[in-house]
Amino acid sequence: MGKNLTSRTEDYSKWYNELVVKADLAENSGVRGCMVIKPYGFAIWEKMQAGLDKMFKDTGHQNAYFPLFIPKSYLSKEASHVEGFAKECAVVTHYRLKNAEDGSGIVVDEDAKLEEELIVRPTSETIIWDTYRKWIQSYRDLPLLLNQWANVVRWEMRTRLFLRTAEFLWQEGHTAHATREEAVKEAELILDVYATFAEQHMAVPVVRGLKTESERFAGAEETYCIEALMQDGKALQAGTSHFLGQNFAKAFDVKFATKEGKQEHVWATSWGVSTRLMGALIMTHSDDNGLVLPPKLAPIQVVIVPIYKGMEQLAAIAEKVNPLVKQLQLKGISVKFDDRDTHKPGFKFNEYELKGVPIRLAIGQRDLENGTVEVARRDTLEKESVSFDAVIEKIETLLVAIQDNIFNKAQTYRDANITNVDSYEEFKKVLNEMGGFIAAHWDGTAATEDKIKEETKATIRCIPLNVEKEEGKCMVTGASSPYRVLFAKAY
Amino acid sequence: MGKNLTSRTEDYSKWYNELVVKADLAENSGVRGCMVIKPYGFAIWEKMQAGLDKMFKDTGHQNAYFPLFIPKSYLSKEASHVEGFAKECAVVTHYRLKNAEDGSGIVVDEDAKLEEELIVRPTSETIIWDTYRKWIQSYRDLPLLLNQWANVVRWEMRTRLFLRTAEFLWQEGHTAHATREEAVKEAELILDVYATFAEQHMAVPVVRGLKTESERFAGAEETYCIEALMQDGKALQAGTSHFLGQNFAKAFDVKFATKEGKQEHVWATSWGVSTRLMGALIMTHSDDNGLVLPPKLAPIQVVIVPIYKGMEQLAAIAEKVNPLVKQLQLKGISVKFDDRDTHKPGFKFNEYELKGVPIRLAIGQRDLENGTVEVARRDTLEKESVSFDAVIEKIETLLVAIQDNIFNKAQTYRDANITNVDSYEEFKKVLNEMGGFIAAHWDGTAATEDKIKEETKATIRCIPLNVEKEEGKCMVTGASSPYRVLFAKAY
Repeated sequence: MGKNLTSRTEDYSKWYNELVVKADLAENSGVRGCMVIKPYGFAIWEKMQAGLDKMFKDTGHQNAYFPLFIPKSYLSKEASHVEGFAKECAVVTHYRLKNAEDGSGIVVDEDAKLEEELIVRPTSETIIWDTYRKWIQSYRDLPLLLNQWANVVRWEMRTRLFLRTAEFLWQEGHTAHATREEAVKEAELILDVYATFAEQHMAVPVVRGLKTESERFAGAEETYCIEALMQDGKALQAGTSHFLGQNFAKAFDVKFATKEGKQEHVWATSWGVSTRLMGALIMTHSDDNGLVLPPKLAPIQVVIVPIYKGMEQLAAIAEKVNPLVKQLQLKGISVKFDDRDTHKPGFKFNEYELKGVPIRLAIGQRDLENGTVEVARRDTLEKESVSFDAVIEKIETLLVAIQDNIFNKAQTYRDANITNVDSYEEFKKVLNEMGGFIAAHWDGTAATEDKIKEETKATIRCIPLNVEKEEGKCMVTGASSPYRVLFAKAY
Repeated sequence: MGKNLTSRTEDYSKWYNELVVKADLAENSGVRGCMVIKPYGFAIWEKMQAGLDKMFKDTGHQNAYFPLFIPKSYLSKEASHVEGFAKECAVVTHYRLKNAEDGSGIVVDEDAKLEEELIVRPTSETIIWDTYRKWIQSYRDLPLLLNQWANVVRWEMRTRLFLRTAEFLWQEGHTAHATREEAVKEAELILDVYATFAEQHMAVPVVRGLKTESERFAGAEETYCIEALMQDGKALQAGTSHFLGQNFAKAFDVKFATKEGKQEHVWATSWGVSTRLMGALIMTHSDDNGLVLPPKLAPIQVVIVPIYKGMEQLAAIAEKVNPLVKQLQLKGISVKFDDRDTHKPGFKFNEYELKGVPIRLAIGQRDLENGTVEVARRDTLEKESVSFDAVIEKIETLLVAIQDNIFNKAQTYRDANITNVDSYEEFKKVLNEMGGFIAAHWDGTAATEDKIKEETKATIRCIPLNVEKEEGKCMVTGASSPYRVLFAKAY
């Protein structure tokens, strides 16, 4: 298999599109904007799900499942929410097809029109808060800490695999609390879960921050986010956690009796990450040879390729390799012995490089004689000959080293691509010449934010949570500003 | 919490509906026919998913994900398939809402009408086989063994929680093979996976069989099924595995080059189980006190209830109990120490009985003095005092014993409710007086099958795979029949 990948410097966007398809992660389907997630891509997503799900449960959350459909009237109950989602939603209007009377095929049965249209959920705040009204009466029913893994639909006009698709998979947490403080704390806790997952599992360094008012979720009082930086200098929002105040409780009339017997509206959060994380993972680590996967998320962590002539040599290699495979599996390391005789070693090397398998072992006749094995790591492409007896230890060390190395590499790149600028001219120059995050003073108004977006396509990605106070002047209007915010062009 | 459950003998159907809601498994939502699966119910479903998913992977299957939407034209490509699903499908016709010009609220935007309507998947054969056409060229690409966990929608008019809902969760396997024999073998392998899961995880005994032509899946050449018997004498189809022949390969033009270089159509199977299994689980084991759960699927396997007066006694109990909790967790046993001081022990006992927790420990002041603990099992409601030092061993033994006992009980009931009958009169008598499976001779025609269904509401549940040859005469027409088939009224 020749890889024939477009190089990143040649056309980053094309490189990404090709890589997603060639590495068997996903492809476009016959349904506009909807993707097929292929088995290898889905196996990575399953590992992400498992990691996140454990973190949610360890922090006291439970999973549940709410309906796919949302009655149109529910969506309308929270004003800014419907404003945000009405323009891009799939609407179910009928519940039956029939054979056309003129024999022209199968058509919608107009006799089966729904009384009220149903929206395919773009997010589930409305249907969930309609349910919470029945579940919450007293402070004893709080907090309610639920999550669901689900598909959602937002009718995007321009779609890209994983990054922006009409249907995508995600998890959405929806929590209910007795006090503002507790809800804010929950939103912050989840941001921490997301950041930890991104950095420790995906090896993707992120900036934790707050969105400006214009960039907030439709219906939120505050949106926390994690922002990552891709290799082409564009930012990618990797997860958001919203403090919703009492907006949805008021829209759906969800009140609780306090310890003192007073009736109060419930406080809420919601938070989600999606298959978009796959895009962040791919664009953070991969190179012109293909995917580079962090060992913690790689479906195959170690692949073993035999180099042989004839079945007798293969049998001798298999005899040596099979016990190693068992030992690695017992240690929880996922390993594949690729003994297909339909493909040559060179083809296999290319294939596993393209698919980002962290460690490749190659073993041939001379290795058998010498008691050695060739160990290659995907991240640096380095190879070395290792004593067969020491190979398990070597693999264990390498899996940790690769996870660390790709994180450090990404962090070094990210840190080298945060630029402080003090004038709008400099801002535009940096934005066009190197991209990355640009830390600049801003007057805090939506008008200035809009102007910058219109003129440069850069948006305020976030106000970092660890931002340092620094008196300054807005680079556009000269008005005073208490700290720098992070701008970037974004996916 | 009083349980106040309607008893099974009083009204089985009402008992079921109440139990599902009171045990916090699921409830109806504001969307017609769609349910909310509550956290406790979802935790059971997650355990089912995990068990099945492991079995699928152990037999060589991988997960993937295909689009929620199916273009109307796809559904029409396989004639009997569209016939089976067109009458009950949710149709997406528009992709945007807007504010009504007369200010009356939010309405469908007629300018955003889809060129081709999209069907919310009732099952995914069509969209998947449209994709397989791109993936399969050669015998080297076969077999293709995929599964997806997904939501599907079938617009049912009369719905019941878990048993029949407009939206439900399921897994659907879709495999592609080079030969008829291999595809048939796959369909049979999966039937075996389903039966093993039902019997060994759910403790639900099942009959493995084949559907008659009238009861086959729309588009299948052969439908294998597992059939369980509920406590009210009605059968429940718990899973189906279909041999699809080359029907979908022909409809979607999926061919492969054989080793000899010939172009042939691919052979297919599909198979699924759904949240309906929750209904089977509930109705097989539960009693008038509430749920009875098999230990292998219980979200909480052991609950510990302290009996105390005052915080000092509670502290002494907690000191004794906390190390026990840790030890049980290390053994992979899920345990909950319910030290809430807002509820009395009697309330808690009722609650965990209702929720079917297999083992309940109670520990009070006297137990502390005597070094004992009270152990109660949910299935038999037996209680005994056990030495604290022996309690872990006791729990391990009991978890196995309970799993076995409820399976044996269900099997004894099932076996006692299979009746051989030789006349249509006797058939109707047994059907009305005791229900259950009725083994009778049938002439093999759809006409007779229809007549029986119309007159008695009983259907042929299956031709058991292990059926014994026995020459006989159809109970209705007197025509010759080579073996007995199983009839029942069914969910």
